[in-house]
Amino acid sequence: MPPIDPAAALESISFNADGLVPAIAQQFDTGEVLMMAWMNREAVAETLASGRVCYWSRSRKGLWRKGETSGQQQRLKELLIDCDGDTILLKVDQDGVACHTGRRTCFYTAARTEGLVEVEKVLIAPEELYKK
Amino acid sequence: MPPIDPAAALESISFNADGLVPAIAQQFDTGEVLMMAWMNREAVAETLASGRVCYWSRSRKGLWRKGETSGQQQRLKELLIDCDGDTILLKVDQDGVACHTGRRTCFYTAARTEGLVEVEKVLIAPEELYKK
Repeated sequence: MPPIDPAAALESISFNADGLVPAIAQQFDTGEVLMMAWMNREAVAETLASGRVCYWSRSRKGLWRKGETSGQQQRLKELLIDCDGDTILLKVDQDGVACHTGRRTCFYTAARTEGLVEVEKVLIAPEELYKK
Repeated sequence: MPPIDPAAALESISFNADGLVPAIAQQFDTGEVLMMAWMNREAVAETLASGRVCYWSRSRKGLWRKGETSGQQQRLKELLIDCDGDTILLKVDQDGVACHTGRRTCFYTAARTEGLVEVEKVLIAPEELYKK
């Protein structure tokens, strides 16, 4: 993807009181919803400029370049802003798995009549993902 | 869908300081991401019990039974909880359109090299959606 000037996008995004906006990552071709994380202005700007998805880690309080330790990067295909500007949808091409548990998606627990059911398999052991 | 006892789901959801959790709605068969809104405990419980999606309206500070004024209801197919319990994915069957602008999805503004581009058509005029 060619770099995108973030000015117009940043102007139409409503960041919350903490300066953050929720961002949903969806695999661009299969439609799988992979994860939801947060972005600040800098993360949005870097993502559009670099074509690699960068979030804001609320726990580490720093930029979180998805895949920088696990290698499971997200390449940006399209960044969409919702009608009131307070949520972002990222269409991405996810390398490997999105979830730190080694599952393709973070949404692997379904609420069903029989209780909570795991509906996604572990594809890569977490030890493999985060080994040095 | 049969009614689902919400106890197990409620126990594994981490509601934020305002008692809310973000919920992404996705059309179950096409994979379209339709919208993101918020739920409190009561909205989660009602959604699982009734099979009709109910959010919490932060602006109206009340339960928001999706479609109660517009008729554009969401029937629940599956409720999924993410790995750290702080986001919900609702697989739904959306009647008509999800967005108050009359578009199928709220995510209709794409950030591209040429600027912001509208990528979804208005399918139902908003005056039609909200007429009495």
